[in-house]
Amino acid sequence: MTKFVYSFNEGSRDMKQLLGTKGANLAEMTGIGLPVPFGFTITTQVCNRYYEENGNIGSDIEEAIFEKIEELQQVTGKVFGDAGNPLLVSVRSGAAATMPGMMDTVLNLGLNDNTAEGLAALTGSRRFALDSYRRFLAMFGDVVLSIPKSEFEKVFDGRKEAKNASFDVDLDETDLEYIIGGYKEIIRNFTGSEFPQDPKVQLMEAVKAVFRSWNSDRAVLYRKLQKIPADVGTAVNVQAMVFGNMGEKSGTGVAFTRDPSTGEKKLYGEFLVNAQGEDVVAGVRTPLNIDKMAEAFPENYKGLVRIAELLEKHYKDVQDMEFTIENGKLYMLQTRNGKRTAQAAIKTAVDMAEEGLIDKATAITRVAPEQIDQILHPTFDAMALKKIRPVAKGLPASPGAACGKIYFTAEDAVAAAESGETVILVRDETSPEDLAGMVAACGILTARGGMTSHAAVVARGMGKCCVAGCSSISVSAGARTLATAWGRTFRQGDYISIDGNTGFVYEGILTTVMPVVSDNFNKLMSWADELRELKVRANADSAADARLALEFGADGIGLCRTERMLYNEKRMVTLKRLILSEDEEEKSAALADMKAFQKQDLKELFKVMGERPVTVRLLDLLLSKVLPYSRETNPLLGHRGCRLAITDPEITVMQTEAIIGAALEVKGETGVEIVPEIMIPLISSAAELSVVKKTVRETADRLIEQSDISMDYLIGTMIETPRAALTADEIAAVSDFISFGTNDLTQMTYGISHDDGGRLVSEYVRREIMPVDPFASLDMAGVGKLIKMACDLGRQSRARIKTGLCGEHGGDPATIEFCHNLDMGYVSCSPYRIPAARLAAAQAAVRSQGQD
Amino acid sequence: MTKFVYSFNEGSRDMKQLLGTKGANLAEMTGIGLPVPFGFTITTQVCNRYYEENGNIGSDIEEAIFEKIEELQQVTGKVFGDAGNPLLVSVRSGAAATMPGMMDTVLNLGLNDNTAEGLAALTGSRRFALDSYRRFLAMFGDVVLSIPKSEFEKVFDGRKEAKNASFDVDLDETDLEYIIGGYKEIIRNFTGSEFPQDPKVQLMEAVKAVFRSWNSDRAVLYRKLQKIPADVGTAVNVQAMVFGNMGEKSGTGVAFTRDPSTGEKKLYGEFLVNAQGEDVVAGVRTPLNIDKMAEAFPENYKGLVRIAELLEKHYKDVQDMEFTIENGKLYMLQTRNGKRTAQAAIKTAVDMAEEGLIDKATAITRVAPEQIDQILHPTFDAMALKKIRPVAKGLPASPGAACGKIYFTAEDAVAAAESGETVILVRDETSPEDLAGMVAACGILTARGGMTSHAAVVARGMGKCCVAGCSSISVSAGARTLATAWGRTFRQGDYISIDGNTGFVYEGILTTVMPVVSDNFNKLMSWADELRELKVRANADSAADARLALEFGADGIGLCRTERMLYNEKRMVTLKRLILSEDEEEKSAALADMKAFQKQDLKELFKVMGERPVTVRLLDLLLSKVLPYSRETNPLLGHRGCRLAITDPEITVMQTEAIIGAALEVKGETGVEIVPEIMIPLISSAAELSVVKKTVRETADRLIEQSDISMDYLIGTMIETPRAALTADEIAAVSDFISFGTNDLTQMTYGISHDDGGRLVSEYVRREIMPVDPFASLDMAGVGKLIKMACDLGRQSRARIKTGLCGEHGGDPATIEFCHNLDMGYVSCSPYRIPAARLAAAQAAVRSQGQD
Repeated sequence: MTKFVYSFNEGSRDMKQLLGTKGANLAEMTGIGLPVPFGFTITTQVCNRYYEENGNIGSDIEEAIFEKIEELQQVTGKVFGDAGNPLLVSVRSGAAATMPGMMDTVLNLGLNDNTAEGLAALTGSRRFALDSYRRFLAMFGDVVLSIPKSEFEKVFDGRKEAKNASFDVDLDETDLEYIIGGYKEIIRNFTGSEFPQDPKVQLMEAVKAVFRSWNSDRAVLYRKLQKIPADVGTAVNVQAMVFGNMGEKSGTGVAFTRDPSTGEKKLYGEFLVNAQGEDVVAGVRTPLNIDKMAEAFPENYKGLVRIAELLEKHYKDVQDMEFTIENGKLYMLQTRNGKRTAQAAIKTAVDMAEEGLIDKATAITRVAPEQIDQILHPTFDAMALKKIRPVAKGLPASPGAACGKIYFTAEDAVAAAESGETVILVRDETSPEDLAGMVAACGILTARGGMTSHAAVVARGMGKCCVAGCSSISVSAGARTLATAWGRTFRQGDYISIDGNTGFVYEGILTTVMPVVSDNFNKLMSWADELRELKVRANADSAADARLALEFGADGIGLCRTERMLYNEKRMVTLKRLILSEDEEEKSAALADMKAFQKQDLKELFKVMGERPVTVRLLDLLLSKVLPYSRETNPLLGHRGCRLAITDPEITVMQTEAIIGAALEVKGETGVEIVPEIMIPLISSAAELSVVKKTVRETADRLIEQSDISMDYLIGTMIETPRAALTADEIAAVSDFISFGTNDLTQMTYGISHDDGGRLVSEYVRREIMPVDPFASLDMAGVGKLIKMACDLGRQSRARIKTGLCGEHGGDPATIEFCHNLDMGYVSCSPYRIPAARLAAAQAAVRSQGQD
Repeated sequence: MTKFVYSFNEGSRDMKQLLGTKGANLAEMTGIGLPVPFGFTITTQVCNRYYEENGNIGSDIEEAIFEKIEELQQVTGKVFGDAGNPLLVSVRSGAAATMPGMMDTVLNLGLNDNTAEGLAALTGSRRFALDSYRRFLAMFGDVVLSIPKSEFEKVFDGRKEAKNASFDVDLDETDLEYIIGGYKEIIRNFTGSEFPQDPKVQLMEAVKAVFRSWNSDRAVLYRKLQKIPADVGTAVNVQAMVFGNMGEKSGTGVAFTRDPSTGEKKLYGEFLVNAQGEDVVAGVRTPLNIDKMAEAFPENYKGLVRIAELLEKHYKDVQDMEFTIENGKLYMLQTRNGKRTAQAAIKTAVDMAEEGLIDKATAITRVAPEQIDQILHPTFDAMALKKIRPVAKGLPASPGAACGKIYFTAEDAVAAAESGETVILVRDETSPEDLAGMVAACGILTARGGMTSHAAVVARGMGKCCVAGCSSISVSAGARTLATAWGRTFRQGDYISIDGNTGFVYEGILTTVMPVVSDNFNKLMSWADELRELKVRANADSAADARLALEFGADGIGLCRTERMLYNEKRMVTLKRLILSEDEEEKSAALADMKAFQKQDLKELFKVMGERPVTVRLLDLLLSKVLPYSRETNPLLGHRGCRLAITDPEITVMQTEAIIGAALEVKGETGVEIVPEIMIPLISSAAELSVVKKTVRETADRLIEQSDISMDYLIGTMIETPRAALTADEIAAVSDFISFGTNDLTQMTYGISHDDGGRLVSEYVRREIMPVDPFASLDMAGVGKLIKMACDLGRQSRARIKTGLCGEHGGDPATIEFCHNLDMGYVSCSPYRIPAARLAAAQAAVRSQGQD
């Protein structure tokens, strides 16, 4: 026979599907011997039967519920409806999936005209009893009888006005009696019946109301958005009420088993004497530090400390507990894993591992990769933040905190920085022309653009704080003003502060806290490195980038973009001469120039990286960037990447000479074994790759033969067109390695360019047409499918082919897990994202081993 | 035991792999009792063993060869090396795959000092015998001994000069003796040995030489280009020589079993008395019409007529035969399926089917779809073409033939046409601005661009003759001149003629033959319609297009591009107002205007099409076409297609109202059952489709409900982004039909835009980096793989979902066969390509049933 109702001592935390999360947790706490007010859970199956039977609860179920009420009366020694010793209960919904605020709760159920007076006698406070009763009436009216809350508020506020009472507490017992009468009248008028005095009737009606709330409009919408199935139903928890407001021997509080800000191992929390839980949350009275409880309730405090230890051992994580003391007796109402700051997350993870409470694999899963970003950048002082309201909010596009004078053009920003000012660059959106201004600024604020807009990507690459897409501001570069939707206008030279961790913008200068890379951090990262299987390389185009990458723990360079070596004015001129000149001599001279500086740059890069792998990509220029009058209407789909290498092989020869020449010289000078990896971009067929590869191989072999130094090298390619992915078997047959270029691959798979489609993508994400921005986190259903297919095909023809992924996605934890699960060799991301990527890689390894 | 050598009466045409094509055909002809000079074939396996054994021929094989020589001596009554009755043979290569001109042949083998005199006695012509001997010596020296031909030519030409002889025939027997002596001396000097007098030695050396020719540089290169495997080897055919030049009772000729120009059923060919085969081909003497042979060789002629009938019955196709008469005896040397003109192909296919020689299914495979294009367009008179040399050659981009005065700008072309001139528009390449000029011209010639360039695609759409990519001309629009690489310059107003079937350009005016759509053509097309399973719809954007499509036999409209309804100046202004205006009233007015004319156009279109299916695609505009100052850097990957429908739903509402409104009115007026198919463009996810579909459905349902007419309609989508193909299961779940838009799909899968990549693709095809232009014929390995995947996925979620393919590829025979094999419902192409598409669809059906 199906069991419809479980007492708290009959369940456990594994029974979430049947008892809901709240019910399972209450059962678990009861099971490990905590002082939890007793009660029972009506299962989710009952909810489903309720809907199947068109809103009726069968008599078999009703019987089972009242059997449990019987048991509850025995355990508590209180009786439903007994004026001398009334049993009061809370009735709460609780589904398997958390649906915060979406469903309903009724407190103080069991009160009626008689038991209210009984409660008064029992607690010695008639005011408390009447206030509880009137709250119950309003809650019952609202939740169970669907009477608008405002009806009850009208009566209440009317009485307050009549009595000239400023606060609720100014109302006396007579007032409350008056209000109770008024509430009953509302119920009578709305429903045509009297308020049910019988607690059993109250209970069954409340249970049905909770079941109904499962299908309320807001709950249905929430489930739809969160993709929670509709047919799992909610459970109902019926629990004996306890009162922290029964006098000076009562109280209530919340406590963490460790400090959630610092991670320090000591009880941390707040406490209120003679109060109910909502008083702590509402902030009407200032709570006391938990330490004060040790003085006021020494026994209860000791009990709480013991329970905290027990809970940490049991749940093996920091606990966030709610408790109530009723007449000197401590009750635990809730416990859950505690939220914590990045710093605390790192410290508690390392401490717990060293205490032996968890293993290293578990420890590294306790810190979110995004938190790593925070720990490496400045933040605003928490106290400072409490004292100020933001003036605007945008997207937290690049972590950190920055204060400075605002400037509206790159030129102004550069000039101000040169005269020694600290600058925040404010733009509608940024473009490559703003680069110098971004370098000069300590932070960037834009009104448009998403998490992968130019400003966001470049700022993250520079490790610089950025708030992007702050649509509530309007920027006038002409007038040099920034106006907020909240009514403030800032002018050039005004100070603002921007928070790249939260997206908030503040007026003036806030105190900034500089990051301290703690021993704990280093320890945690070393554990991550032990556990991860995926290598983490850096996108780095210069020796300076490479040095930074090594500081952040990169295993190598996955993407050195040779076209970025040209991004300065003088070199650009050389490039234009090379591509545009029809004079062979001038062309040759330009080739020689380019070779010289590319080789010099690469030598420095190889020196920094030593024996670590370095992948150098041949030029992938958009012609439109070099030739302003290029006739290409869609340069992304134009004459770029390997296509230029095929039509202008002399450029490939020159680049190969620069790469191999640099490697040979560094090896000659230092003796370090270098195996350069030459990567051919944007191929769409094995035939294209073969043509370019032949040029590279002939050039490289010639150079190596001419030198007296032996050298191995690899020739691989990027998979960044859908066709390359679809024919990866043919491509892998002629390629030493393949690296997925997910930015172009996403653009072409979607048929949306990142630049043109940015705003569209933001709108799509907002309207939930896209689950995430596919330029920030890999689109698993489409692009991911293509990548998986390419890996499978590639390994069919070359089982152990080296595979990697480079580009902005390489720093995204979900993408990193995807790469790990596909057994790729490495991801490559910008240097600042490397620590988070290392952690994400380790977490993926742990999860895939089922150790999480 | 392996059989190394097959007599001609031991093989058959099925043994091509073993005997080579030539050997198998000789065996087949022998087998059906034709008078073929006897001989035998050394198998391809021997060739492979020759290479395995490092250029040696085993004694077992040699023995087998000489056994066959023994047999040949018995059959012919002639003996190898017997001066009284010498056996002479030809030694020819013959692989399974045809490799024309790539490999070597030795004739007259068996001649030596003795047998040459024997031959002289036997034929009564010592001059003939000595001439044959000197030819054999030179051929043996060249092919077998690798002595440069020029050495032999020096001796020959030296003698001619010494004798003041203008022609070869001026040399007498003494001269030939002198030359023979000289040739032998060359052989002695080059090889250090005497020329081998022993015919058996000659034979074995010649066989080895043929085997060696399999691996000559040119043969290896040819195989590589044609993707013929290298390890199959060549066979060697050894055949008794017959001589058509043995006197007035000898002769040689070629004949077709039916007229290859008209298809008329009568022997057609040419004949030369006392001549060898090469004399017919060389064109030194003017051959006689085959009818003359009936007078000169009445018995042989009757024999040839009988053989022609026999061969047609046997091969069930028109035969192209080579024959020789030696001293009154007819020998058949070769037969193969005869090449024929489009007109002849159609007539013979229909005739043969009606004669019962072949069935209808075979008949429709006898005409190439490309030939259908020719038959529907004017051609140049064949006699006229014989009398003129072309001045340039480009790509045959759109079939037909046109003569006219050349003009170099659209304006000039329009003006000239308006003043009554016939115009050929000559441009470097065309762009949309040239449209009026293209309309005004009767033909288009461009110096750049491939088979899918703007000029080519637009011309085909107009059914207008076009030669594109004529890179040997240079066009100066400024100077109004066209200069050819062959030295001619044409000025504005000069006459030229262009041939869209061949790509040739001629000076002046050529006689043009207008197409006559024969009863045979209609009969053949009706058979094709009976046999095909794939529907052929038209891309048509107006009632005029629709009428044309119906004339060409379209089953419906697969693609009506509503944006093309806007391609006139006035409507463009309305569209700009709609998209750019920020004034709601102006926007509404523009919407109403657009709805009015779209509805009117669609009404006319629906009226023309009646109950046939019509797919109307919602706007897919490139914003850059509407907004010249659009900031999109890659409009193809920008805010277009369904993306506009999502951000501007009022346009979708307006278009749905126009489509459904038009259909309702036409149904109301005519009673014809119309089921409009509304197609949503450029989706990349099911979510996008669902959003637009909701708008369409709500609008359509509202309109239908408001009318008193019932109407079904379908809502489907285009699969034209790779992501849509990859997630076709999700998309099919919410789509009534899917249609592959292969132009965009190709652009995005390759990451190459058609406009920007056109020249690159031409270069790739030329350099064989791409096998074909993927914008002309579907890229099976990449885009095709994606389409197959999408069909499979789509049918997983909706087993019987309607599928089609629309765009330029819809008219390509290979693509059509691909669609048939994928079990698609239809292809859609421009009206002019419909007949060829119908035929291609039928051929695909026949081939897939193994009836071909």
